[in-house]
Amino acid sequence: MYRNLYDTDCITWSPQGRIFQVEYAMEAVKQGTCCVGLRSDTHVVLCSLKRAVSKFAGHHQKLFKIDDHVGVAMSGITADAKVISNFMRNECFHHKYVYDAPIPVGRLVLMVADKSQANTQRSGKRPFGVGLLAAGYDDAGPHLFETCPSGNYFESYAMAFGARSQSSKTYLERNFENFPGLSPEELELHAMKALQASLAADAELTADTVSMAIVGKNQPWKELSTDEVQSLLDKLNAESAGEDVQM
Amino acid sequence: MYRNLYDTDCITWSPQGRIFQVEYAMEAVKQGTCCVGLRSDTHVVLCSLKRAVSKFAGHHQKLFKIDDHVGVAMSGITADAKVISNFMRNECFHHKYVYDAPIPVGRLVLMVADKSQANTQRSGKRPFGVGLLAAGYDDAGPHLFETCPSGNYFESYAMAFGARSQSSKTYLERNFENFPGLSPEELELHAMKALQASLAADAELTADTVSMAIVGKNQPWKELSTDEVQSLLDKLNAESAGEDVQM
Amino acid sequence: MYRNLYDTDCITWSPQGRIFQVEYAMEAVKQGTCCVGLRSDTHVVLCSLKRAVSKFAGHHQKLFKIDDHVGVAMSGITADAKVISNFMRNECFHHKYVYDAPIPVGRLVLMVADKSQANTQRSGKRPFGVGLLAAGYDDAGPHLFETCPSGNYFESYAMAFGARSQSSKTYLERNFENFPGLSPEELELHAMKALQASLAADAELTADTVSMAIVGKNQPWKELSTDEVQSLLDKLNAESAGEDVQM
Amino acid sequence: MYRNLYDTDCITWSPQGRIFQVEYAMEAVKQGTCCVGLRSDTHVVLCSLKRAVSKFAGHHQKLFKIDDHVGVAMSGITADAKVISNFMRNECFHHKYVYDAPIPVGRLVLMVADKSQANTQRSGKRPFGVGLLAAGYDDAGPHLFETCPSGNYFESYAMAFGARSQSSKTYLERNFENFPGLSPEELELHAMKALQASLAADAELTADTVSMAIVGKNQPWKELSTDEVQSLLDKLNAESAGEDVQM
Amino acid sequence: MYRNLYDTDCITWSPQGRIFQVEYAMEAVKQGTCCVGLRSDTHVVLCSLKRAVSKFAGHHQKLFKIDDHVGVAMSGITADAKVISNFMRNECFHHKYVYDAPIPVGRLVLMVADKSQANTQRSGKRPFGVGLLAAGYDDAGPHLFETCPSGNYFESYAMAFGARSQSSKTYLERNFENFPGLSPEELELHAMKALQASLAADAELTADTVSMAIVGKNQPWKELSTDEVQSLLDKLNAESAGEDVQM
Amino acid sequence: MYRNLYDTDCITWSPQGRIFQVEYAMEAVKQGTCCVGLRSDTHVVLCSLKRAVSKFAGHHQKLFKIDDHVGVAMSGITADAKVISNFMRNECFHHKYVYDAPIPVGRLVLMVADKSQANTQRSGKRPFGVGLLAAGYDDAGPHLFETCPSGNYFESYAMAFGARSQSSKTYLERNFENFPGLSPEELELHAMKALQASLAADAELTADTVSMAIVGKNQPWKELSTDEVQSLLDKLNAESAGEDVQM
Amino acid sequence: MYRNLYDTDCITWSPQGRIFQVEYAMEAVKQGTCCVGLRSDTHVVLCSLKRAVSKFAGHHQKLFKIDDHVGVAMSGITADAKVISNFMRNECFHHKYVYDAPIPVGRLVLMVADKSQANTQRSGKRPFGVGLLAAGYDDAGPHLFETCPSGNYFESYAMAFGARSQSSKTYLERNFENFPGLSPEELELHAMKALQASLAADAELTADTVSMAIVGKNQPWKELSTDEVQSLLDKLNAESAGEDVQM
Repeated sequence: MYRNLYDTDCITWSPQGRIFQVEYAMEAVKQGTCCVGLRSDTHVVLCSLKRAVSKFAGHHQKLFKIDDHVGVAMSGITADAKVISNFMRNECFHHKYVYDAPIPVGRLVLMVADKSQANTQRSGKRPFGVGLLAAGYDDAGPHLFETCPSGNYFESYAMAFGARSQSSKTYLERNFENFPGLSPEELELHAMKALQASLAADAELTADTVSMAIVGKNQPWKELSTDEVQSLLDKLNAESAGEDVQM
Repeated sequence: MYRNLYDTDCITWSPQGRIFQVEYAMEAVKQGTCCVGLRSDTHVVLCSLKRAVSKFAGHHQKLFKIDDHVGVAMSGITADAKVISNFMRNECFHHKYVYDAPIPVGRLVLMVADKSQANTQRSGKRPFGVGLLAAGYDDAGPHLFETCPSGNYFESYAMAFGARSQSSKTYLERNFENFPGLSPEELELHAMKALQASLAADAELTADTVSMAIVGKNQPWKELSTDEVQSLLDKLNAESAGEDVQM
Repeated sequence: MYRNLYDTDCITWSPQGRIFQVEYAMEAVKQGTCCVGLRSDTHVVLCSLKRAVSKFAGHHQKLFKIDDHVGVAMSGITADAKVISNFMRNECFHHKYVYDAPIPVGRLVLMVADKSQANTQRSGKRPFGVGLLAAGYDDAGPHLFETCPSGNYFESYAMAFGARSQSSKTYLERNFENFPGLSPEELELHAMKALQASLAADAELTADTVSMAIVGKNQPWKELSTDEVQSLLDKLNAESAGEDVQM
Repeated sequence: MYRNLYDTDCITWSPQGRIFQVEYAMEAVKQGTCCVGLRSDTHVVLCSLKRAVSKFAGHHQKLFKIDDHVGVAMSGITADAKVISNFMRNECFHHKYVYDAPIPVGRLVLMVADKSQANTQRSGKRPFGVGLLAAGYDDAGPHLFETCPSGNYFESYAMAFGARSQSSKTYLERNFENFPGLSPEELELHAMKALQASLAADAELTADTVSMAIVGKNQPWKELSTDEVQSLLDKLNAESAGEDVQM
Repeated sequence: MYRNLYDTDCITWSPQGRIFQVEYAMEAVKQGTCCVGLRSDTHVVLCSLKRAVSKFAGHHQKLFKIDDHVGVAMSGITADAKVISNFMRNECFHHKYVYDAPIPVGRLVLMVADKSQANTQRSGKRPFGVGLLAAGYDDAGPHLFETCPSGNYFESYAMAFGARSQSSKTYLERNFENFPGLSPEELELHAMKALQASLAADAELTADTVSMAIVGKNQPWKELSTDEVQSLLDKLNAESAGEDVQM
Repeated sequence: MYRNLYDTDCITWSPQGRIFQVEYAMEAVKQGTCCVGLRSDTHVVLCSLKRAVSKFAGHHQKLFKIDDHVGVAMSGITADAKVISNFMRNECFHHKYVYDAPIPVGRLVLMVADKSQANTQRSGKRPFGVGLLAAGYDDAGPHLFETCPSGNYFESYAMAFGARSQSSKTYLERNFENFPGLSPEELELHAMKALQASLAADAELTADTVSMAIVGKNQPWKELSTDEVQSLLDKLNAESAGEDVQM
Repeated sequence: MYRNLYDTDCITWSPQGRIFQVEYAMEAVKQGTCCVGLRSDTHVVLCSLKRAVSKFAGHHQKLFKIDDHVGVAMSGITADAKVISNFMRNECFHHKYVYDAPIPVGRLVLMVADKSQANTQRSGKRPFGVGLLAAGYDDAGPHLFETCPSGNYFESYAMAFGARSQSSKTYLERNFENFPGLSPEELELHAMKALQASLAADAELTADTVSMAIVGKNQPWKELSTDEVQSLLDKLNAESAGEDVQM
């Protein structure tokens, strides 16, 4: 059980051209709880499993409102996520103040990516241990972005990450061509199904273990209440009684 | 007995995406004396075991008044706690000076969390070795927060940490649904019982080994005097003579 | 499996006068996807394989527009490439603002090279892990440059790098003397053929796996649409049905 | 004889949540000569063994006057103590200049504690290797504080530290309840006895090996002269001839 | 195959009073391609082998024009050479701006030497891995300087360095006494012959593998065109057909 | 022959609460040549062995004049001593300029001590390797101080340090009670005898191997000439012919 | 062949109170070519062996003119010597500008010593690897100083250092008492003889391998021409034909 070579810090290249410390930070994202994001032509939905802190303390926060038109789901180190979401809120505020208009989602994500990359190329800091799904709506319509600890980011129609997210991805890949035209509620149901796919066979989603948020046309960022989540789950169960969900 | 790998400092990721130095700092919190916090709809109570420094020097301070409307209980390295509580006092003062209003409790906790997180992502500093239960009352009612060395924090209805705090948590989990409507004194009694649950079988609470403080509606932060603690203990014993407390 | 000697960081010389950390960063470029660039007397074409992020997220971006008259193809660490391309955009903007004229391509590349070299001679930073093919058109005609993590750069008539790029280079070497007089479309076809040469025997280019961009005389930077790429592929196949492409 | 693990510097946590470098600095305090402090309702007395530098150079200074109303006894690294006592003198002077009033003793001690803690959480510095007993008198009456290299501090009625101080503590614990009402001279005698308790069986206090100072109501900081110490010793011996001092 | 001792960095002396990191940087110069410089009473000629980047990209640049009256040939790390040549251009420009006169060659070389030396006596930087032959003409006539990674420099009548340069040096030593009175073209021919001496027995100079530049009285820095080089080679061959060149 | 543990640098505590690097610096003082200082009620004399640099270069300077009223003898690293004596000269000058009065000797020594202590608590510097005997005369009469690399200092009536100084100390201890009333010349003779005590049995003091200086009432700092030293030696020998000096 | 202990850097003391890195830097001086300096009552002469760079490049510069009234001979790392001599030139210039008078030689040497010492007490720098013989003439007459990498310096009547300098020293020791009254030429001849003493038995001085300079009363710094050196050698040989030079 020896230490790997060339993984001292994020400014050391391995002979194969890899930077292990950044890869290790990505591991923190992979081991967070599963998050799912998907979008139609008008809306974006984020959905995440939530782990209870304790019976009386609620759950670890997985969804963060950034501004009226944008929010994020996170996987990884929560404290890092909070720092980044505060950074994003400041940038939103600053942009509104300077330009009197909400910040375009892509520009906001670019700022997060730059901030993240900087921490992968400097000694004395460590890469952030958090991946984000950023959902927003601006003049160019709805957007869904994924950001990584490396500072990389992608725009996407649907995305899932975190523990056991592969099954969610499979569900999304099978269905994402239907998403563009869907209504917000249909989108929410798909998100629910994708999240469910990430569960172990004998586990089930409950209103207490799912966080869901939506943002879109004429729909500022809204995190669904437990009742709204429950009513979605009821529909889901009714549906899946009729037909077998294929994962 | 070799040193763990990847635990050199807080800017080194392990291949599993963990930051050991932060986890070690959390260990300092776990080994402090037990602290309990709980809240009703109007008040918050903090309660802590206290260890004597020496017969003539009183006890290690576990409860710190921050401002009239907020105070903290701490577990871990006392010197670190004092630095953080001074920081909180300054922020309270500054907020009052700028806005002519007491700082909202959540904002104050956020500042502590940011300060803590910064020390987990920079070389040349170490993570703080202290966890806080912050109790306060502001326009939005009573608040109970827990902060960690990682910079993470949670709002909660009840919480316990420190050595042997698991039993206290169990007590709180069994009873916290009754807390919202309770009177301040009932809340104090529950805090006492939860703390007692953390003791070894043959140990008993005395007025000398318990610190208790309360803050809430029309109730600025007040640390209970030894007499007040004693009278609570008397009630507790009277009660437990009548009925067996279930832990 | 011991660690190499003298490869601690980029400020350590080996006894043979080499700086291994820079060589390792170059390895990251070699393992990126293959990129090809070539130019006529009037135009420059960049062409790259693209790897899908996922079925619904499109592809890793390989071509970046910098300004109307210049763009780059990258191989290596994408996050590093984004930082460098943002740097280039800022320099373009700045030059336009100060001189009211587009920046000469060579000057822009020199700035990237200086920035890259600086990271190879200072502790506390790491060399960038990205190589660029920069294509542009200015008063001195079309330009094609290659930049390396070491801060080195070359002007060239044709160039290929990334995984399996040796076969592309061979194709380019055999044909580059014909390039000067070619029309833009002929140039695009040659780029396509050179890229195809880098594929494994049983692999084939599709409109989904190729990015292509052109810049030149009266032709601002334009990334070809999927349809345009497809029509090029059709011509290519028609052609290669008639004659065997020699690699 | 291997080096302990996790004791590289004061910004490294051990897996058990300890910071060894701070604990080692505390060891320097434990190995200094014994110091004793105790207070009545009106006065505070500090008393210390003193080690000769050489026959003609006097003794290592153990008691430091800070201001008219406050002084300290130290155990540990003398040079560190001198730096801290100069720091305290400056703060006293500064407070007097700004507020035209002597600094409250508690505030002064808090400043020392903050300065000490800062050195336990930063690389490039080491924790101070000195513990202080600070004795002072202000509007709130007499004060006795103990400070540690960790930045921790306690207010106390009586305290002893340094080599073999456990016996002194035992003496103080047995007698401190009588202290509040005592006259200054009675207090001095108790300090002498407590110090004597720390001696090996065959050793005896002499006017040359004891430093004693007093501060209190209408009594600015005064270090006793050799004659005054001798007269105290005479009384002590007369007394102990009559009754056996119980340690 | 253990690492040498005392070669960690350029601020570590070996017990024999050597600084290995500087010696290693000098190794990079020795392994560059061969460069030759020589001067008459009126002109200086620089001449270098050039290695092709690729068939279509031209050659690695070995000769750099700094100003009208000065240029350099380099051996070692090209990216370092580019940084230094830019530095030299800036200093030339600055001198012209301030004094309205071209910078004396010796002063320019001194600046390069100081810059190089600084990197050999400071941690956090590495010695430059490049040696220069600086050729220039100023009020004091023609100059030829050699600079080293150590910050050392020499003025010389003739010089050669890089791979296999020993044979070139031998040629120069045998002939340099004839140089002062030579015409520019004769000087160029001698440079060519000296360079040829560095080749393996079966290798031959071609117009494609030689760079040559000249600067002198009424002759601003000029890099010879391929045709001019070819015509020199023709004369060389004609000559050596008649007489055997002695090396 | 392994390296000691915990002696990496001066900011590392050993588990026993020691700082080895400071102790090692003190070793440099112990191995310097022997210095002796002693004072009467009106004068202070410093006396030191001096080691020849070479036959024609005179001797290593051991006594340094700081100002008219103060000077030092040093043992340890000469270059460090020169830096400190320059520092002292500057402080003297500065004090005279600001207050129009010579600096009190104690204040000057305190400044040296603070400067020395700072180097024992900071990384990136090393403790000074020099001990001083500072002799001066101010409004409070004559002063003799000893300073250590640790930043510690003592006022004393007589002192010796350096190689084999134990015998000198023994001489001083036996005689120092007679010093207060002595005339300057008697004081000088005692200094000479104390120094002689440090010599090996067969060695003898000569005018060439002794430096002596005196400062006191109406006696600005004066280093004795070789003749004056010789005449002292003559008296010493005459005396010791009559009576046996007891060491 | 293990690395010495405690020689990591110049801020680490060995347990014996030595700083090895400074001693290693002194080794660089010892291995430089031999330099000799000596002075009469009116003049100072510096003399040094010179090593050829190459047949056509002249020799490594060993003597540096600093100002009209002062110059140095160096042994050790040439690039370091150049930095120091430039520093000295700047200080001369600055002094002349501010005081309108040439800088006293001793003050100039003190500045070099301070600069050198600073590099022995700070991490991130290395001690200079150069020793100087500084010769000058000012209001106080002629001066000859030696400086060391440690920052130490000595004024001297004659001095030699560098490889095999012990024999030169022996010569100087035997003859230096005759120097004060000598004429410049006689002084030069002695310098030559001292230098010759350092040669191996079968080696001989030639006008090409000796540098000599003189400065003194009404004699600004002058480096002797080859002819002047040759004429000295001729006299030397004539003399030694008559009498045997005793070494």
